[in-house]
Order: sequence, then C-alpha cells, then structure tokens
Amino acid sequence: MKINPERLWNRIMAMAEIGATPAGGSNRQALTDLDREGRDLFCSWARDAGCSIEVDQMGNIFARRAGTDPQASPVLAGSHLDTQPTGGKFDGVYGVLAALEVIETLNDSDTSTTRPVEAVVWTNEEGARFSPAMIGSGVLSGEFTLEYGHAATDKSGKTIGDELLRIGYAGDRPCKAFPIHAAFEAHIEQGPILEVNDKTIGIVTGVQGMRWYDVVVTGEPVHAGPTPMDMRKDPFRALHSIVAALYEMADRYAPQARVTFGDIKAEPGARNTVPERLILAVDLRHPNEATLEQMETEFRAIVEQSAAQAAVEGSVRVEWQSPAVEFDHECVSAVRTAAHSLEYPNLEIVSGAGHDSVYLSRVAPTAMIFVPCKDGISHNEAESAEPADLAAGANVLLHAILDRASR
Amino acid sequence: MKINPERLWNRIMAMAEIGATPAGGSNRQALTDLDREGRDLFCSWARDAGCSIEVDQMGNIFARRAGTDPQASPVLAGSHLDTQPTGGKFDGVYGVLAALEVIETLNDSDTSTTRPVEAVVWTNEEGARFSPAMIGSGVLSGEFTLEYGHAATDKSGKTIGDELLRIGYAGDRPCKAFPIHAAFEAHIEQGPILEVNDKTIGIVTGVQGMRWYDVVVTGEPVHAGPTPMDMRKDPFRALHSIVAALYEMADRYAPQARVTFGDIKAEPGARNTVPERLILAVDLRHPNEATLEQMETEFRAIVEQSAAQAAVEGSVRVEWQSPAVEFDHECVSAVRTAAHSLEYPNLEIVSGAGHDSVYLSRVAPTAMIFVPCKDGISHNEAESAEPADLAAGANVLLHAILDRASR
Repeated sequence: MKINPERLWNRIMAMAEIGATPAGGSNRQALTDLDREGRDLFCSWARDAGCSIEVDQMGNIFARRAGTDPQASPVLAGSHLDTQPTGGKFDGVYGVLAALEVIETLNDSDTSTTRPVEAVVWTNEEGARFSPAMIGSGVLSGEFTLEYGHAATDKSGKTIGDELLRIGYAGDRPCKAFPIHAAFEAHIEQGPILEVNDKTIGIVTGVQGMRWYDVVVTGEPVHAGPTPMDMRKDPFRALHSIVAALYEMADRYAPQARVTFGDIKAEPGARNTVPERLILAVDLRHPNEATLEQMETEFRAIVEQSAAQAAVEGSVRVEWQSPAVEFDHECVSAVRTAAHSLEYPNLEIVSGAGHDSVYLSRVAPTAMIFVPCKDGISHNEAESAEPADLAAGANVLLHAILDRASR
Repeated sequence: MKINPERLWNRIMAMAEIGATPAGGSNRQALTDLDREGRDLFCSWARDAGCSIEVDQMGNIFARRAGTDPQASPVLAGSHLDTQPTGGKFDGVYGVLAALEVIETLNDSDTSTTRPVEAVVWTNEEGARFSPAMIGSGVLSGEFTLEYGHAATDKSGKTIGDELLRIGYAGDRPCKAFPIHAAFEAHIEQGPILEVNDKTIGIVTGVQGMRWYDVVVTGEPVHAGPTPMDMRKDPFRALHSIVAALYEMADRYAPQARVTFGDIKAEPGARNTVPERLILAVDLRHPNEATLEQMETEFRAIVEQSAAQAAVEGSVRVEWQSPAVEFDHECVSAVRTAAHSLEYPNLEIVSGAGHDSVYLSRVAPTAMIFVPCKDGISHNEAESAEPADLAAGANVLLHAILDRASR
C-alpha cells in the first residue's frame, strides 16, 4: 500500500497559500486569523475523509478515523500548523498532512484497522507568537498546567485563552493525558545530515538533551591606554581559553556532542576600555543525558580554571534545559521496519531540535520520522523539500501506523 | 621658589563645586551653563592675578602674564575644564589651575620672565558632549578646520558654534597656530604606573600611537541542534584564536604594547544559532609608530590565518587612528631637570591616553607632566589625587616654565 504523493504535495501547497510570503514561505502564526483559516482547511479535509473531530481546551485538534475495536486506544500521528514569522512551507505542516494522507490512503484501499487512527494538530509549537514553544503538547503531557497555557501572552498582551475563544478553537475536551497506544510525527530534518549522506528516511531514535547557560566573566574596567597589560583583569583573557577548551571538549564527545556560542555581550562595551564583564551564551547538547551531565561538569571546571588563570571571576548560570529523550523502542522499530521493507535509503538519527513528540513521549510510546530538507535550512522562507522524499516519509508513516494500529 | 599648595587645592575644590555630583565627581560638560560658570571663575581668578584674557574663535581661553620682552613668543601651560558626564575633580582642571598657580607664584615672588606666560583653557577636550575629542586644540593645530569645529553637534542638535555664542565664549581671536616658544600640560596620569612604582612625577616623553579596528568574522547561521560540528562555519572558531594570538603578540612587544578588546557583538545573537557574524573591537597601542605599524601587519596576518583555518571570512577595518607622538626634547628636558632638582621621585613615562598636547605638539615644542591618581582611576567620580602630589607637579611645571620663559 502507498500513499498518493500528488494529493499530499497539493495539500501542502494549498496550506502554504494561507499566509504566503513574497519570498515563498508562510507566516501563519499561532491563533491568528490565518491560523484559523489553516485549521479550518485541515478540518474540512478531515471531515470529507470521514473523520470525527474533537478540539481540546488548548485548541489541539484530534481528527479520528474509527477502528474496529471501539475499546482500543488510538494511534496518533501529527505535528503543528503554526509557523515562524518568516517560516517555510514544510515545518510542522508536513507531519499533519502526512497523517491525514495516511487516513485518506486507508480509506482509498478500504483498509480497516483495529485501533482508531487520529491525525493531530498541536497548538503553538513554534513559540514565535506565544512563549514557551510546544505549549499545546506541553499542557497535554503535564509539563504545563492548563492555566499556565491559557495565560501565555503575546507581545500585544493577548492570551492564548482569549485567542482560542476568538478564533473558535477553545474546545471542551480536557487537555490532559489519555490512553494512547502509539504516536508518530513525520517532520523535515531541519539539519543537513540526511542530505549529506544521501538518505531518504531518518529513523529518529531520540532527541538531544539541551542545556542553555550564560557564562559571566568579570574583570576590571580600566583604560586601554594607560594600563599596562600585566596590571589588568581582562575578561577576554579567560574567554578565549574557555571557547577553545569547549571546542576541544566537543571533539572529545564527537560526533554527537554540540557546543554553540550563539551570543556574546561586553559591558560597558566601550572601544577603549577593558570590559568589566563578558556574558557568553553557551548551548550544550548530547543525546545521552549522562554524557551531557559529564559535559556540564567539565564545562564548569573549564570556566573555573580559565577564570583563575586570568585572575578574573567566572560563573555559570543555567538558563534553560531540556533532558535527552529516548523514543519508544517498539515505535522506533515500527519506523525502522517500514523504512527497510519499503527499501528507502535510511539512517538512525537523533533530533537536534525540540518537537511536540518530546512532550508527547512522556505520556505515550512515541517515535519520529525525518525526511531531508534542502541544505538543512528551516525556520526560513527558503525551506524546501522534494516531493518524492515527502511521499517516502508518509509511506513509512503509513506502514508504521498500520503496524501499531492492528495490534 | 615653590607654589602655594593650599591655594591650588582650594581652587580645584572650588571648581569641582560647579556641576558637583552626589558621588563626589563633576558633571561640567563642554559649553553648558556649568562650563560657562567654570570658565567665568577661571577668568575672574586670572584677571585678579593681573592677566589679560583673550578668547579665540573656538572658545579657547588664553590668560597672559606679560614678559619683559614685548616681542617674545609666549610659554603656554594649560589643559581643559570640561568633564565627562560622571567625571572627576582633577582630569583637565588640574592642568589649568596648576598653570594659573604658576602665574600666581611668579606674582607672589615678584618674578619677571623674559617671555609672556599664558594659562590656557582648551574647548571640548573630553568629546563627551561634542565629538571628536580635543576639538579646540585640534582646530588651533590645523587638524580640523574652523568650520568643522563650529559644526560639531551634540545629541540634541546644538552645534559648538551656536553654544559658544550662547554662553558668551565665541571670541574673535583667530583659532590658528601662532609662535609658541614652549607648551606644557600637567595632568593626572589616569593609569596606575606612578602609584605602583611609588613615584610622584611622570616625565612624559610622548604619547602612544593608537589604532582602532573592527574585526569582522563571517560564517553561516545554522541551528545549534541539528548541525554537526564539522559541517559548521562558526565565527567563534576564528575568534578565540585571534584573541589568543593577539595577546601573544602583546607579550612579544611588551612592556609598551597595549592590546584591548573593548567590545564584541554577535549577529543575529540568538542563543541556539551559530552566529553569522562576530564584530570585535580591537585597540592597538605602542609609543613607537614603526613598531605599531609592524603590530598592525602581524595583526592582519593573524586574522587572515585564523579565519582561513576556521573556514570563515575575516576582515579588518580601521575605525580611527592617532599617530605616536614624541614630545620636544628640550621641553622634556626642562621637566626632567625640574623634577630632579626638586628631588621628587620620578620616572619617564609614555602617555596611554590622548591629550590636547598631542595636537599642540604639531605646532609648538611641547611636553607633559604626570602626577599619580588613586588606583589609576579616571573618567569616574571616584577620581582622586593627593594634594602633595598635585603641588609637586605644579612645582615641576613652575620650574620648567621658568626655564623656558627666561630664554
């Protein structure tokens, strides 16, 4: 059994028209009028496919194709329809419409499943309009309370609770965990690994643990001219060795460790004054939580030693963290079996970015399927993916769902 | 002959009252009403001391004590009365009032000199209200045109030309070079060298050459999670080795080389994105212009090599430069002789900061005298200096002037 690649592609293109940007992307931020249009379009397709639709208190949409066993817990597949302000056509949208395409394909072939199959749309995955990201799946999984979810506020002061009411997606189904037999999410990779390795399918075994820190190095702000080099307490003396040592640490934990310095600030930031303070944003990632913990220990020692050697003060503040996720072995196995039996070139991969599946995996057996995107570019109007790859991912999703929904 | 230390100290304290800040400093920015008050106070003291006063087109004030030879070119001594927004009591003020104190002392002892002695106040040395700094001495020395000087504008859009008229200091004496036999400037060191070496007098032999650069390192902005370390073009890979190599270069040109990184910016500066661009402010200084030129050559090679190794783009932009100054040997010798004959502990020193004497030295034989300031702190309300050190510097100024004014 195979999905219909033209229908999938045409629906992705139709969804991209809602909030289309001149540069070829989409701006369809969460709970805007455009997001309502996108949701309405999804619901009309799902209803035409015979699905019953429920919306929960966070606006998450569940489009259900009934199974033969009325008591059986469902198999879920989905992602999100909201985008970044200058987002692409595929991030999130692909996972939602691939799930719907699976339902259409089951209909086309008149295939019944023991368990219900539900195509799901999660609210505010991007976090672009309302912070934090992944708030719909986060409330359902118990990471956030419903009150917290409803109170999240955009820059103009509007809350998720108010905006759900306004666009007609404040459902009455409780937003909380319920029995889920298995959950899958198809997604573009948002990185270059599949493309570089010439693979069609990424069998996602988990999600990197991520930890965000601020390193603060404090010295003495003295005049650049009159102060001899050996009388200075210069934070840059510590900074360069911290950065060098962390890259060296990344090498030791290669290939899966990630070390990123996304931002740096100098205070007071005057051209002819040694900075009093440098603030360096450090992002450490590793798929294994114990290894990540070990990296943090070494990182803290590096900052301490570098600061001591430069006679300045160094400190490390944790700003945010997300533990490493290992996806459900049976769900991953269902994806792997599907990819192999369909003979798609594939590799096992760890997601470097967060997804709704991170939260969902806390309350349901979960796995993900990646397909390549051009040059690894995402969160960008230039985001691009090949129709054949998108179809391959949807076929893997179809067969993984068939596997889990028949048990 | 010795100056009167109480009169000098009391006048510095009286001047500090004009624009006094709660934390013990002064805020008397150029050409404000408070600057007018300070100028008026100086002029009243100078008139009381029998001086004739002339103001030039840039508001520079010349208070002249006549010599016995009406044809002889004068000996000048002075500095500035304007301050930083949170400035101290001594920066500039000390040099102006030490010059006036020399004139008072000559009066007290009924000493006549062959040449006239002039106490000078230069306009807008700090550059805090109007950019560039040292604009009064800069126009006089020909570094800037008079039109440029008058057109300099503060943040509210007011020009130096308008503000000179408003506060009554738009003089009609031409602001241009004239025959000057010798010029001296007494100043707090604004650095820690005299204090650390337990010296009272710095015999300033010159001013460091200074060059300001922006280093721009450009890579590729990719997501911190999904992008493997070896597929990145990360500007921080070049940055840390540039910083390390420049400190190593400073060691090679020690003790007189200065390397300072005053500011750094990351673009876009998102915590989970490899920066597309890092912009690093680099300040290189050395008292010898040829050595500074050699440092720049090595600096450019370091940036090029570091960028190439990290597979990113590196470039160096010159933002500003001020050539090294070697003060007049006879004027420096007059300062040295005075310090030795008065038996003040002293050392030869190179100024790390700019002063009006930098521009003045282009059109007149010039030298400077430094006295210690506490912890090397300046441009700060905590700026502090000992009365005995200030008196010692004024005595050296007195005898250096006596030497030059009798020839």
